[in-house]
Amino acid sequence: MKVHNFSAGPAILPRSVFEAASQACLDFNGSGLSILEISHRSPEFTTVMAEAESLTRELLNVDDDYAVLFLTGGASSQFFMVPLNLLNEEDKASYVNTGSWSTKAIKEAKAYGQISEVASSKDKNFNFIPKGFDIPQDSKYLHITSNNTIYGTAFSEFPETEVPLIADMSSDFLSRPVDVSRFDLIYAGAQKNLGPAGVTVVIVKKSIVGKVERQIPTMLNYQTHIDKGSMFNTPPVFPIFVSMLTMKWVKDNGGLEGMAKRNAAKAQLIYDEIDRNSLFTGTAEKEDRSLMNVTFVMTREGLDEAFLSLAKENNISGIKGHRSVGGFRASIYNAMAPESVQALVDIMQRFEKQYG
Amino acid sequence: MKVHNFSAGPAILPRSVFEAASQACLDFNGSGLSILEISHRSPEFTTVMAEAESLTRELLNVDDDYAVLFLTGGASSQFFMVPLNLLNEEDKASYVNTGSWSTKAIKEAKAYGQISEVASSKDKNFNFIPKGFDIPQDSKYLHITSNNTIYGTAFSEFPETEVPLIADMSSDFLSRPVDVSRFDLIYAGAQKNLGPAGVTVVIVKKSIVGKVERQIPTMLNYQTHIDKGSMFNTPPVFPIFVSMLTMKWVKDNGGLEGMAKRNAAKAQLIYDEIDRNSLFTGTAEKEDRSLMNVTFVMTREGLDEAFLSLAKENNISGIKGHRSVGGFRASIYNAMAPESVQALVDIMQRFEKQYG
Repeated sequence: MKVHNFSAGPAILPRSVFEAASQACLDFNGSGLSILEISHRSPEFTTVMAEAESLTRELLNVDDDYAVLFLTGGASSQFFMVPLNLLNEEDKASYVNTGSWSTKAIKEAKAYGQISEVASSKDKNFNFIPKGFDIPQDSKYLHITSNNTIYGTAFSEFPETEVPLIADMSSDFLSRPVDVSRFDLIYAGAQKNLGPAGVTVVIVKKSIVGKVERQIPTMLNYQTHIDKGSMFNTPPVFPIFVSMLTMKWVKDNGGLEGMAKRNAAKAQLIYDEIDRNSLFTGTAEKEDRSLMNVTFVMTREGLDEAFLSLAKENNISGIKGHRSVGGFRASIYNAMAPESVQALVDIMQRFEKQYG
Repeated sequence: MKVHNFSAGPAILPRSVFEAASQACLDFNGSGLSILEISHRSPEFTTVMAEAESLTRELLNVDDDYAVLFLTGGASSQFFMVPLNLLNEEDKASYVNTGSWSTKAIKEAKAYGQISEVASSKDKNFNFIPKGFDIPQDSKYLHITSNNTIYGTAFSEFPETEVPLIADMSSDFLSRPVDVSRFDLIYAGAQKNLGPAGVTVVIVKKSIVGKVERQIPTMLNYQTHIDKGSMFNTPPVFPIFVSMLTMKWVKDNGGLEGMAKRNAAKAQLIYDEIDRNSLFTGTAEKEDRSLMNVTFVMTREGLDEAFLSLAKENNISGIKGHRSVGGFRASIYNAMAPESVQALVDIMQRFEKQYG
């Protein structure tokens, strides 16, 4: 049974990655040991960790001014680790509020510095990306959420500013080329394009760490993980291994340029149908549409359940919308095949014929 | 090739668990989806999470006064989360220092309260468990490390005290029955007897949480995870799934009574040989010997490498001792078969015949 998995995250990964992960659970690289039982200090795993780091550097063109870390705690832990590590209490930082995750990042940051919400799309249920806002030049950084999983919006271009950028890229990491040199810090929970749940990548400019006065618990200090190569304590071995496999797949499939091209084509397929089909309408402003999370609602009342049933009958999974937006959400991450997007478009057309 | 995996952690898990984990990477419970791509909000995974919690409760006889949480960050994060959540700055807490992990726990705690090291075995390179020490009655809690992975010692009995106990049980969790009602909080990194690296179990008495004045980041507040059933953010799906599978295996193999019996027999096998064999000697005081991590050194100089080579030839892996103790360490967790311990005993005997 082929299931089309449109889940927002944890989400689809390449089939070849599932197969390699499955094999490694039984015998990792012919070692006679499972990947689940090998020591994180073994040469077998330190090689995996080194490869995960070097693939991240290669795919995103990350130079040695930056550390690449594999941590735990999710992006939710970065919401407080960023200001904890980078702001003294009197320091200012600016945040753009583009949805639930930005809102949480702002809330946690307020405990550590003087936080300004410099722009927000809250008044329109976060259906657009604010532009042309002022950024106080004394901000230590400007924090953005590059892609908003729930609301289906994304920064197609990052703000032009002299202030260092920090981005939560959880839901579009590795989906397109990014000029890392424009950022002081990028973080992403793995469970969209990178790997399974349980690891968070942090790309941080080394020179910005260690400048605050407060005492930071060892495990929460970026410097600890920079010094120890993400091995201060036992890292999440299997999630890192699967992330490494996924990055290899990205590399073998055209790198980030290849992903961007493929993702743009998939997004056009589904957005074109949404715009054409009389029964559906998109929720995000067209120019700010996410290429990862496609949010749309029914133009007529009372048909949602019927459409979800039709989806289920056709092995289309995970398209119920988040309660904050309602309707439907099709998450079409890197590993999603164009054929799966076409399968969704097909049932949208059949649904229109029946109910339109 | 059968490899005898004596690694200290990540460590051996049951073969049947590796097989079930491998299968779930391809198709989870006939869903057509990999366990690595299913939503943490799906009924498939919420069932796994519920089962992981209920198995923990059943195996350890944990009542409803306690929450059972599955977090990330390792035991190393509990070193600061415990005092952060439980101590006001003027509050006192007592710690027993039985090795590297206790030392780290004490260091992190000092940022949050008045910490006393009430007993230590540091003067003898942590080769024993202190007993008969005084515990200030105004301590909020007494913190112990129940088993010391590096030094091969363990509390065979927990301190008798009126003060609430808190224990880092990372390396002997699920290895023997424990009266949880004697503890306010128990934590354990999974990667010994519970599961693969990437998840940490916390069993916490609900009434002790929420009593401190300081502001706690949402992700670091036990109350957050109690309220959300460990699903405030995306949990480490696969490590929790494999931990659940391992707990099922423990239940099917006699529960904690069964594990304790099996572990005692394995430990006796190897310790008897250490005590008999003229070439080896144990490093821990006999009455404080760990049943999980068996530490021993050579009685003659210059033979370590030869023994490690013999081990390697016989597919015996992971017995090099930690640099703090030297020599050898055989970690014989729940899933280690008696036959593997016998394989190690066999080469110790052959080695004695050759060099003794």
